[in-house]
Amino acid sequence: MLQPLLLSLFLLLCPFSTESTPINVWPKPTNLTWTSPHQSTLLSPTFTITITTQHQNNHLSAAIIRYTNLIKTEHHRPLTHPTTNLSISNLPPLQSLTVTVTNPTAELTHATDESYTLTISTPNATLTASTPWGAMRGMETFSQLTYGNPTRVPVEVRVSDAPLFGHRGLTLDTSRNYYPVKDLLRTIEAMSMNKMNVFHWHITDSHSFPLVVPSEPMLAEKGAYDVNMVYTVEDVKRVVEFGLDRGVRVLPEIDSPGHTGSWALAYPDIVTCANMFWWPAESDWPNRLASEPGTGHLNPLNPKTYQVLKNVIRDVTTMFPEQFYHSGADEVIPGCWKTDPTIQKFLSNGGTLNQVLEMFINNTLPYIVSLNRTVVYWEDVLLDDTVHVSPTTLPKEHVILQTWNNGHDNTKRIVSSGYRAIVSSSDFYYLDCGHGDFTGNNSAYNNQTGSDANNGGSWCGPFKTWQTIYNYDITYGLTEEEAKLVLGGEVALWSEQADETVLDSRIWPRTSAMAESLWSGNRDEKGMKRYAEATDRLNEWRSRMVSRGIGAEPIQPLWCIRNPGMCNTVHPI
Amino acid sequence: MLQPLLLSLFLLLCPFSTESTPINVWPKPTNLTWTSPHQSTLLSPTFTITITTQHQNNHLSAAIIRYTNLIKTEHHRPLTHPTTNLSISNLPPLQSLTVTVTNPTAELTHATDESYTLTISTPNATLTASTPWGAMRGMETFSQLTYGNPTRVPVEVRVSDAPLFGHRGLTLDTSRNYYPVKDLLRTIEAMSMNKMNVFHWHITDSHSFPLVVPSEPMLAEKGAYDVNMVYTVEDVKRVVEFGLDRGVRVLPEIDSPGHTGSWALAYPDIVTCANMFWWPAESDWPNRLASEPGTGHLNPLNPKTYQVLKNVIRDVTTMFPEQFYHSGADEVIPGCWKTDPTIQKFLSNGGTLNQVLEMFINNTLPYIVSLNRTVVYWEDVLLDDTVHVSPTTLPKEHVILQTWNNGHDNTKRIVSSGYRAIVSSSDFYYLDCGHGDFTGNNSAYNNQTGSDANNGGSWCGPFKTWQTIYNYDITYGLTEEEAKLVLGGEVALWSEQADETVLDSRIWPRTSAMAESLWSGNRDEKGMKRYAEATDRLNEWRSRMVSRGIGAEPIQPLWCIRNPGMCNTVHPI
Repeated sequence: MLQPLLLSLFLLLCPFSTESTPINVWPKPTNLTWTSPHQSTLLSPTFTITITTQHQNNHLSAAIIRYTNLIKTEHHRPLTHPTTNLSISNLPPLQSLTVTVTNPTAELTHATDESYTLTISTPNATLTASTPWGAMRGMETFSQLTYGNPTRVPVEVRVSDAPLFGHRGLTLDTSRNYYPVKDLLRTIEAMSMNKMNVFHWHITDSHSFPLVVPSEPMLAEKGAYDVNMVYTVEDVKRVVEFGLDRGVRVLPEIDSPGHTGSWALAYPDIVTCANMFWWPAESDWPNRLASEPGTGHLNPLNPKTYQVLKNVIRDVTTMFPEQFYHSGADEVIPGCWKTDPTIQKFLSNGGTLNQVLEMFINNTLPYIVSLNRTVVYWEDVLLDDTVHVSPTTLPKEHVILQTWNNGHDNTKRIVSSGYRAIVSSSDFYYLDCGHGDFTGNNSAYNNQTGSDANNGGSWCGPFKTWQTIYNYDITYGLTEEEAKLVLGGEVALWSEQADETVLDSRIWPRTSAMAESLWSGNRDEKGMKRYAEATDRLNEWRSRMVSRGIGAEPIQPLWCIRNPGMCNTVHPI
Repeated sequence: MLQPLLLSLFLLLCPFSTESTPINVWPKPTNLTWTSPHQSTLLSPTFTITITTQHQNNHLSAAIIRYTNLIKTEHHRPLTHPTTNLSISNLPPLQSLTVTVTNPTAELTHATDESYTLTISTPNATLTASTPWGAMRGMETFSQLTYGNPTRVPVEVRVSDAPLFGHRGLTLDTSRNYYPVKDLLRTIEAMSMNKMNVFHWHITDSHSFPLVVPSEPMLAEKGAYDVNMVYTVEDVKRVVEFGLDRGVRVLPEIDSPGHTGSWALAYPDIVTCANMFWWPAESDWPNRLASEPGTGHLNPLNPKTYQVLKNVIRDVTTMFPEQFYHSGADEVIPGCWKTDPTIQKFLSNGGTLNQVLEMFINNTLPYIVSLNRTVVYWEDVLLDDTVHVSPTTLPKEHVILQTWNNGHDNTKRIVSSGYRAIVSSSDFYYLDCGHGDFTGNNSAYNNQTGSDANNGGSWCGPFKTWQTIYNYDITYGLTEEEAKLVLGGEVALWSEQADETVLDSRIWPRTSAMAESLWSGNRDEKGMKRYAEATDRLNEWRSRMVSRGIGAEPIQPLWCIRNPGMCNTVHPI
């Protein structure tokens, strides 16, 4: 091994090693200062992360091992050319990062304190956090400050950081297409790199039922795409633990009563309109049977529905320690329920579909609450024009609504009614949009003069660029009091046109854009939107994610990051 | 090893082995019959492909080895559930495929005969073709007919097949972002699976110059993104040979005089407006310096331009045996040339930009022709509104025009003027479109009510779905005589927002849609567009491509292929 002095001499002579790195941590910390003259030092070959806290937290211990390894082996090479020459020859190498956690037993729930303070001086750096989860965020920041081979780290850096929003999530649909467990883990790993904290797992839908539920094994046995395309109890445990080791909650969604066609393969009698053609030729749109191909709703009038569903709910709350339970309740389509004779009879006796839905909610919500869960529903349960329940059915202290329609308007409706909101506006946060209509036999595409109409057939098109996502202000138009009810946001990848082949590139780096926007905002010190300078930083960050094994898509030619600012537009477009 | 009888018994007892495969060859052959009762047999473990032709063609030999291995090891598992039970127990296994090529020395050029006849009876199958390239197409068809483990193949199958269009290509831009050689090879491999025959390699552009040109090594040394991000002479040889082994011509493009900013790093004096801001704040659109960030045009008034360029042309024609040479000539932007004092002087003396471009063409086209090349230009050289040359500058016998603007209209303009055309309409065939604008600092994305305007900022948006591509009729609106001048088409992947992370999913399976449309058309026997039935087949084919290592994106939930027809729409949208 070279002596430090020799090593420094080598670094001074070697062109690459004299390059500096801009300080580039994604998401950008709330406060970061790098005292002049902007020096870096080498990471000692014996560098360690040590913890001062007596009480051991297993998840934090796992994170320390992981980050120690990452920091020593990553050797990140920045894309940018040198901007300043760093003087490193006179500084002793960094020997350690000392982590102090004041509340080591804090659990990972919504609003867990994720703040941290990081000070890098040589020979030692210190990281202080209230919780293990804040310490993980701080270690991520530290890891992103290291670069080069041998590894260097800037010194006289002080970071004081905390997120703007407590809920920074990603919804992934594993029903329309299946994702192997390794892909879920890699996604959670990438979320953690971006300081995100909620993996909202939309596990089941009409297309397949991949979750092995111990007390209802038939659901996956019949409803999964394949015997190998399932998530076992062990798989779930692995995903949950993997998330906890990275500060990512795993929030399960069992969508119901709609989006349940796959349940009919095991229990045909509890599902209405299962496996029927979704939009019959004779029908207009209001009389379709489903919002898209793949029909089936649980039948709220059949007592057996609750027998099966409560088994599922109980087992899911056992498998997932997460405090929130997502019960779906989106897109209840009248035509589907109306195919059922018992529901027909109920309606002909003066009942309404709203009552049918209320019956369903009243038979399930209290049970979920009794299992100590806060219930998340899609906004439809309250806001759908056709079928919805009254607010009295949805106690505000137990219910959170996730919004996806009508942008800011629905967020406003939710929080002004006193409900907590998670924002997933499809106009801004739906990652699958803009790839056209997935239904076959679509004559719109037999147009010889172009297919520009209706965003290329994508109901939620166009494609949401990273800039679209970055600039979205989830509390826009709200009062200060209302804004407090916005827990945060989630981007969503629905999987009609996605599976493992495109998982990474559909999600990243666009999800990084939301991650920063919800962590430290999208404005600079002067209050101006900072999307111009964010472009260069996101290029760098995307490159680092790729070298960490995340297949994030490029946002610009490499030329742009090599020529900062030259790929901007200065014209309003 | 099991005896055939035991093996057959095993197959009868094992649920999967009784599944049949629909005949699914992509692109669909012109004529394929499978005589009832639709039987399959096993592939003998000693199965071989033998060639009856005395004269050996090395490329064909390589293909035979490759297909023998593929056929014996692929064991494709169809996505579909059984439609008919195949009786295989009484048939002897298939022992061999005998290949006969009547013209084994035929070279791979435009309009090379790619027809073939394939007859599968047991114990032997026969494949007859005029050329080695037709034989490769036939072996691909044979490989796609095999399935299962152990491998089975349908018998009493007769295929008589030939393409509708001789030019079925893909343009790939390796300048804006770089692709490692292995990615180019995998792309060519996938093209061959789809019976495509032209890899149009847009090698250089303003952003980087990755081609190592032996007589002008400085161009890559200075102009490539990195010392490792180049294509050496050996790399090119490997790509070319790889293509020939698969019936894919490698057509080089050295775009000029526009799109040459990267040349300025080695030769600043031959490039006008290099490295300037592309669209200055004071200018309106007609006064921009480039069509996008990355400025620079070769200067036609500088004799040194031709010295360098002719070295490049000579070396490129040496490295690439392909008969066509693509010289680009798209998007000449007046503002760029007008920054140059010598061009300013020429203009102030009454000269025109058209004359400047004509000077360029007259100084290069005859030289390329003298090297026995047919020159392909983008249509702009003749059709651009602002800067173009007169038809007399472009002899029809030596020039082919590739169209990308205005859909059918420009195809019509080209062929009605007597030029041969290659169709790459950006409204239908541009694979990069629909991902938004890549320029930074774009205020359009700071819109809190959605970004629907202008297709999400993508100039050529929306995204071109596979159905859009499949249904495009490249000779629409042409007379029979005009249609003969349409050589074929090329989809194009421009790489502003693409690199190796998304290469496969941007290209496949959408490019398969063009491959079938140009091979056997997009209509059924009754003359109706067949996009409905093509949906199921493309799902199957995409799945097979994925298992062959091509990361093609999914077009539907797996549920759709398991429930044929159920994901269609029957409503005009």
